Amino acid sequence: MTNSFVKLHIDGAVGTLIFFTPEHNALPTAILTDLEQQILRADANTDLKVLVIKSGGDRTFCAGASFKELIAIENEAQGKRFFMGFAKVILAMRASRLLTVVRVQGKSVGGGVGLAAAADYCLASQYSSIKLSEISIGIGPFVIGPAVTRKIGVSAFSQMTINAQEFYSAEWAKEKGLYAEVLNSAEELDEAVAKLANELATYNPEALAECKKMFWSGTKGWKKLLEDRATTSGKLVLSEFTRNKLKSYA
Amino acid sequence: MTNSFVKLHIDGAVGTLIFFTPEHNALPTAILTDLEQQILRADANTDLKVLVIKSGGDRTFCAGASFKELIAIENEAQGKRFFMGFAKVILAMRASRLLTVVRVQGKSVGGGVGLAAAADYCLASQYSSIKLSEISIGIGPFVIGPAVTRKIGVSAFSQMTINAQEFYSAEWAKEKGLYAEVLNSAEELDEAVAKLANELATYNPEALAECKKMFWSGTKGWKKLLEDRATTSGKLVLSEFTRNKLKSYA
Amino acid sequence: MTNSFVKLHIDGAVGTLIFFTPEHNALPTAILTDLEQQILRADANTDLKVLVIKSGGDRTFCAGASFKELIAIENEAQGKRFFMGFAKVILAMRASRLLTVVRVQGKSVGGGVGLAAAADYCLASQYSSIKLSEISIGIGPFVIGPAVTRKIGVSAFSQMTINAQEFYSAEWAKEKGLYAEVLNSAEELDEAVAKLANELATYNPEALAECKKMFWSGTKGWKKLLEDRATTSGKLVLSEFTRNKLKSYA
Repeated sequence: MTNSFVKLHIDGAVGTLIFFTPEHNALPTAILTDLEQQILRADANTDLKVLVIKSGGDRTFCAGASFKELIAIENEAQGKRFFMGFAKVILAMRASRLLTVVRVQGKSVGGGVGLAAAADYCLASQYSSIKLSEISIGIGPFVIGPAVTRKIGVSAFSQMTINAQEFYSAEWAKEKGLYAEVLNSAEELDEAVAKLANELATYNPEALAECKKMFWSGTKGWKKLLEDRATTSGKLVLSEFTRNKLKSYA
Repeated sequence: MTNSFVKLHIDGAVGTLIFFTPEHNALPTAILTDLEQQILRADANTDLKVLVIKSGGDRTFCAGASFKELIAIENEAQGKRFFMGFAKVILAMRASRLLTVVRVQGKSVGGGVGLAAAADYCLASQYSSIKLSEISIGIGPFVIGPAVTRKIGVSAFSQMTINAQEFYSAEWAKEKGLYAEVLNSAEELDEAVAKLANELATYNPEALAECKKMFWSGTKGWKKLLEDRATTSGKLVLSEFTRNKLKSYA
Repeated sequence: MTNSFVKLHIDGAVGTLIFFTPEHNALPTAILTDLEQQILRADANTDLKVLVIKSGGDRTFCAGASFKELIAIENEAQGKRFFMGFAKVILAMRASRLLTVVRVQGKSVGGGVGLAAAADYCLASQYSSIKLSEISIGIGPFVIGPAVTRKIGVSAFSQMTINAQEFYSAEWAKEKGLYAEVLNSAEELDEAVAKLANELATYNPEALAECKKMFWSGTKGWKKLLEDRATTSGKLVLSEFTRNKLKSYA
């Protein structure tokens, strides 16, 4: 894990948060905790008006939960703690006064789709297909469910969850509302992200903060809800079914 | 009605429920009651992990309410009782721990659209256009409204309800979220249904049941809501407008 | 403002409400008040079954808030009062027993998008692109937010709000659910509006009223919500950022 990192870069009113792990940006607890902390730090920085979130590398945006950590979970408390890592990142993005712009350069799986869905505005490359494979390993997209459903609706979320072996295309994700824009290349993606972030950086910060509140109205219950969901995932991950599946991938 | 039937077929962890009536699979109370009972029976069968629901014949999936029974309604209590037949089927699909996979081979009207919408995953052939014609006979899609709105949203539901003479194509229904997949032929449809059902049958039943709960969270009020809606339909069906319309079709 | 008007025309069971201002149908308080009053008047007219709403001219459907009035706002009370004009029109459309059919012949901006979104059924020409530019002048689409979100969902609404310089096409608006139909020309648009209105005029008014109630169920809190939103807009419009922006356009 020595190469993994989370970095917050500040340029005028635009903060850029980058995360990376050598396992296709799969997320262990340490990185999830860092992500949450840096989102809180950006929120507290009154110079900032907008937060761009992206991952390192030019292929997978985020492979979801770290399989190494999933395998190491030994009891329900540990299980819940692990899944709370995703919950806390989503809740921090939701609670921030900053509009979040997520840049997706490639595939996302499970929790990675949750990060994209927690964005206020998500731009992706044409290679950014998405998969919710949780049910095929005996768990489910419980913690990220509210964020994904909020963006793509219960029909598309049910479909992805049930058809767990399928990668859905970036174009499909755009039709359903996960991505606001799909760009042809990483270069075009970077240009579009920079253009939007720089534009938002010129706006009235009070108006931006009120828009943020409006976008997330009706999600007050999420703190409790995501915690309950983490409990559910934390139990299911201990099932024999899941243990066997995880071992077969290890 | 002698040829009408509801049958539950069990094959390993996959239950398959088939209904048929000689009137384009239009549904009288007796068949609705049987459907509800068989859904409950499947739910109680601990061997099962998934429930496929389909109708007989190779054309219409379901023509909705039985016109013969609609015409015979003489008072509000009878009216409510009839519409509660649809409510009970939808509520049984919702409350079941089993994921439901609905196979739609052709057109649906009114209550038939409600059955498709109550599915967790609905696959259809390209011929499976849909119509909500209720308002043109002086009633409305009240009982099925919550299920249809949950799947396609209030915009598309309002549109179909108001533009009551129009069949909307299977492709439109897929874009709006009613169908997860649209297949070219009955053969491809059968293959896709079997593939999905067999895959779901290999999964962890606890995880499937938790996903089911998640998909339907926020619908706790439906028992009371659908009963209120059945009351509304039961009243309107007695209006002179509706009596005259029904007679003109008889 | 001498040429501005709001007229209610009655033809059998079809009411047609027309508004016009010489500033691309941008709406000052006087016209918003008239609109609300005429919607209430139509609702009280028991001959009517359906209300068509359209604007004058063959280009812009509605440019949103009157900039002249925005500039003249001097305190929070005046600000709130102005934005309540939009709130009251939306609430009147929502509360009416009449199904509303909105005819959109061209572009809409800000509050104009809100009017289209408050329709039960909205038909538009292919030139009817839409923009929510509020955030670029330091406010936000707060009062119209609930109506627009109800029709196009929180993803598309967030996208438009954030990407405030962009006109989204009529085709996009249809995909997202704002428009039920997009027609090629003003002539086709008029034909389609007349066909639908005349059809609705033949239906059972009790059934229409129950459908209307169903479409808007879950919006009981809007009176308070839109008032809170008008307060927010009324404050932000006084910010230095907004004052400077408005002056630069004047």
